[in-house]
Amino acid sequence: MNLIRHFILLLFSTLCGAAATVATVEKWGVFELELTGPAEGNPFTEVRFGAVFTDGASTVSVPGFYDGNGVYKVRFSPGSTGEWRYETKSNRWELTGKLGKFTATPPGPANHGPVQVYNTFHFAHADGTPFKQVGTTIYNWTDTPEELQEETLRTLAGAPFNKVRMLLTPQPTPYQNRFAPPRWPFVGTPPRAWDFTRFNPDYFSHYEKRVAELLALGIQADVILFNPYGKFGFETMDAAGDERYVRYVIARLGAYRNVWWSLANEYDFLRTKTDADWDRLGTLVQHCDPHQRLRSIHNGALIFDHSKPWITHVSMQNGSAVEESGRAEMYRGVWRKPVVYDEVKYEGVTEYRWGNLTGRQMVHRFWCGTVAGTYVGHGDYFATVNDDTFTSFGGKLTGQSAPRLAFLRRILEESPSLGIDPIDKWQDANTGGVPGLYYLSYFGQATPTEWSLKLFKNAVAEGQRYQAEIIDTWDMTVTPVEGEFVTKKFDNYHYVDAAGRTVKLPGKPGMAVRVRRIGTDGKPAANVLPGD
Amino acid sequence: MNLIRHFILLLFSTLCGAAATVATVEKWGVFELELTGPAEGNPFTEVRFGAVFTDGASTVSVPGFYDGNGVYKVRFSPGSTGEWRYETKSNRWELTGKLGKFTATPPGPANHGPVQVYNTFHFAHADGTPFKQVGTTIYNWTDTPEELQEETLRTLAGAPFNKVRMLLTPQPTPYQNRFAPPRWPFVGTPPRAWDFTRFNPDYFSHYEKRVAELLALGIQADVILFNPYGKFGFETMDAAGDERYVRYVIARLGAYRNVWWSLANEYDFLRTKTDADWDRLGTLVQHCDPHQRLRSIHNGALIFDHSKPWITHVSMQNGSAVEESGRAEMYRGVWRKPVVYDEVKYEGVTEYRWGNLTGRQMVHRFWCGTVAGTYVGHGDYFATVNDDTFTSFGGKLTGQSAPRLAFLRRILEESPSLGIDPIDKWQDANTGGVPGLYYLSYFGQATPTEWSLKLFKNAVAEGQRYQAEIIDTWDMTVTPVEGEFVTKKFDNYHYVDAAGRTVKLPGKPGMAVRVRRIGTDGKPAANVLPGD
Repeated sequence: MNLIRHFILLLFSTLCGAAATVATVEKWGVFELELTGPAEGNPFTEVRFGAVFTDGASTVSVPGFYDGNGVYKVRFSPGSTGEWRYETKSNRWELTGKLGKFTATPPGPANHGPVQVYNTFHFAHADGTPFKQVGTTIYNWTDTPEELQEETLRTLAGAPFNKVRMLLTPQPTPYQNRFAPPRWPFVGTPPRAWDFTRFNPDYFSHYEKRVAELLALGIQADVILFNPYGKFGFETMDAAGDERYVRYVIARLGAYRNVWWSLANEYDFLRTKTDADWDRLGTLVQHCDPHQRLRSIHNGALIFDHSKPWITHVSMQNGSAVEESGRAEMYRGVWRKPVVYDEVKYEGVTEYRWGNLTGRQMVHRFWCGTVAGTYVGHGDYFATVNDDTFTSFGGKLTGQSAPRLAFLRRILEESPSLGIDPIDKWQDANTGGVPGLYYLSYFGQATPTEWSLKLFKNAVAEGQRYQAEIIDTWDMTVTPVEGEFVTKKFDNYHYVDAAGRTVKLPGKPGMAVRVRRIGTDGKPAANVLPGD
Repeated sequence: MNLIRHFILLLFSTLCGAAATVATVEKWGVFELELTGPAEGNPFTEVRFGAVFTDGASTVSVPGFYDGNGVYKVRFSPGSTGEWRYETKSNRWELTGKLGKFTATPPGPANHGPVQVYNTFHFAHADGTPFKQVGTTIYNWTDTPEELQEETLRTLAGAPFNKVRMLLTPQPTPYQNRFAPPRWPFVGTPPRAWDFTRFNPDYFSHYEKRVAELLALGIQADVILFNPYGKFGFETMDAAGDERYVRYVIARLGAYRNVWWSLANEYDFLRTKTDADWDRLGTLVQHCDPHQRLRSIHNGALIFDHSKPWITHVSMQNGSAVEESGRAEMYRGVWRKPVVYDEVKYEGVTEYRWGNLTGRQMVHRFWCGTVAGTYVGHGDYFATVNDDTFTSFGGKLTGQSAPRLAFLRRILEESPSLGIDPIDKWQDANTGGVPGLYYLSYFGQATPTEWSLKLFKNAVAEGQRYQAEIIDTWDMTVTPVEGEFVTKKFDNYHYVDAAGRTVKLPGKPGMAVRVRRIGTDGKPAANVLPGD
């Protein structure tokens, strides 16, 4: 986190007209302005504070927030390099009309900017770097004992996951039922007597620290604003309370470029809110977030109307949809937005059928989602941590899927930046890719003993050269097929290999084939072919 | 068709104050009022005409239409019995302010009223009679030689289909490329020089005759307003032309209780219109149809946003979605409206993969859709009629699926009036029904050799009695399993048979099992159980 505390110096230099050091922050980093203001009354409800930032070309109104002890902050993540000037706005004299500037410097090598929707169904960082989502779920990890939180970070550093779904407010878990969370988001008396007009800045600054640590690991934080697990009473806020909470969270967290907003976990299980409430809250996030982070809402049994304009991508709970790639594709066409199957049941052993996938089933679901042009989320539900699980509490991973998801992630990183789309929608559910360039076929539970090249006609012509590799999704091997394939028209729909070659497959489940066009240099083409 | 021509008599009796015969029409029948008015100029664009009907409780504004030769008509289908009074409205003196009345009598035994959405995902007639859609497709049958149209009606009289998808305007077909259609919807010169401001009443009155004949057969007419097959130029109308056409069609056809409006066939292939155009036209139909017939829009490759409020049910082209019941269910939850898979490829033998299903594949798709709580449409694409097919031209059915769909329809007629819904969504794709009452499991391509009772917990308790039958969907047999099953709790999710009985299945594809609760009379319960 780029914490800037140069304001006093800056103010001094402005007043004296003297040359002074101007604060710097990386493009897409966090510029933080800190002011001192009133501490009496209830600053959370009585003081409005923010700043307008401009680089001359664009102007951004950024909400600030009260951080306790008379301290007011505004956080802004500049989207372009160069000089930015600002002016504060407030309904208090000591916080309004303050002028200043800072310089946004070019991003460092690990800073690719926030993740955005790319090519309708996919994601990319703001600098164009593809983001191929391989997510996991650790709902309550920021509420666990400190040493466990640190262990979770170490686990994540060695794990394949580049996105974590995490609750913002605590939820009851087996552990939380015995030991209270160390901090609470509101002032009041646990477990349910809260003053919803007073936030606890310690709670949020701790949460921010964890978000920043995820950022340092290159991991997106899919921050869940509301959850339906009512024991602590956060679901009892009225509409004004919800709005105050959403605005406070956005002001505090929104400048971190790895933040995504998930309106709710299992929204339909939160019985105090209607679809219209969610639409209002989602629209609020859309309109009051100056950084326009990604926005979604996650379902239980009832699917939300993801055609709402505030929803940037689909966050789906439906494990059955990724049991089979033909199913996985279907929600894409419905909403024409990226589809992330954020909850597909968890790998684990429990009496609950939502938490007892085998490792193989979890890996299978990821591959089904992948060739269907969608993204999948993982969960590890073995009760190994204080009677709790990785997916609820963090700690160590137990299941067998994680290394295989690391392998899948490598395959994804090697896939075209355009993203994997179904090649022949509604005809060949097993194959995704980019026509004429890249094909990934996954055979799922089937156990084929041979394979031969058969490419759908789009972008294919006679005489194109391709290389094939056999992928074992469980044993994590990529075995190149010797020689190359040259296309020949087969019928109105397909091209096949001119030499009619067939390739032996091992007759076991979980196999895939990757076919890549050979470029003029004789190597598989990564993305756009030279001279093509 | 209940054609009423008593207006002159009625007018006479009103003027004289004498007692006279009052016209009668069945509830949900068609009352038609005919007046004479101006024939000069262009009455289609210059004369506005309609009538307001009231039975004292409700008041309905009904648009009229010009039928040529100075004749103006308004058609109204009363939704309640008793006396209805009306007053005409027009921008011409001779057509405005005419008063009259008629009596709506109770419906006859075959008249169940229009089909409406029922229980979120299903359909029922206005009198509560369930409508279990088993559709077919005969796009151009009203444009074929008269003797072929008659043959088509005879075929339909003996076929299982209770809904026909049919175009309103002609489209090019192999036959139409050699012989012009006998009538055209507009005045002008074929194939493309039309005066879109002048309709051809003969075209529409012929179409209406066919719609009325379908009604007499108990068949719904899913009337497709626009199609993308451009050879005849109807897709070149401007927005005003589209609106005039839609209003004219609604005024003429909307009073027939078996009419459904399909905005378009393969809307996304009609390149002269945008999604916003379709939304405008759909909203127009919603607002100008006094009878509020069902409304849908049918896609090619791009799925429409069926969350639009003017859409009453989903009309889906996606054959792959009904290859497997787990897929078929998915669109239900998205839109929470009835899903009709109106195009799932056709049974036939062609070089096109959209027209070469086997009979078994067609029947399989219907059964997948059925247990998933959706409805399916049939097409017969054997080139047997003037080089054309049943699905384009009508005539005789060639394929093997139709008798099996008659068998399925019988199964559907015997199913609960609430409709078949997935019993354990996202867990058991094979089973639909009504919890605690009726279960229909379809095993698709699987070839199980035995079956045992396993019911999801909803509405099930220990000691309930069920009867089971083995269904062969291809050989069209229903074989009762001897004796009865009595439920016993198995785990947190399921109940099984207390005696642990297993039933032998023949180990072939296309098998189903029907399980029905035994009522207090010892017979399978049809719907709600007495004393339950």
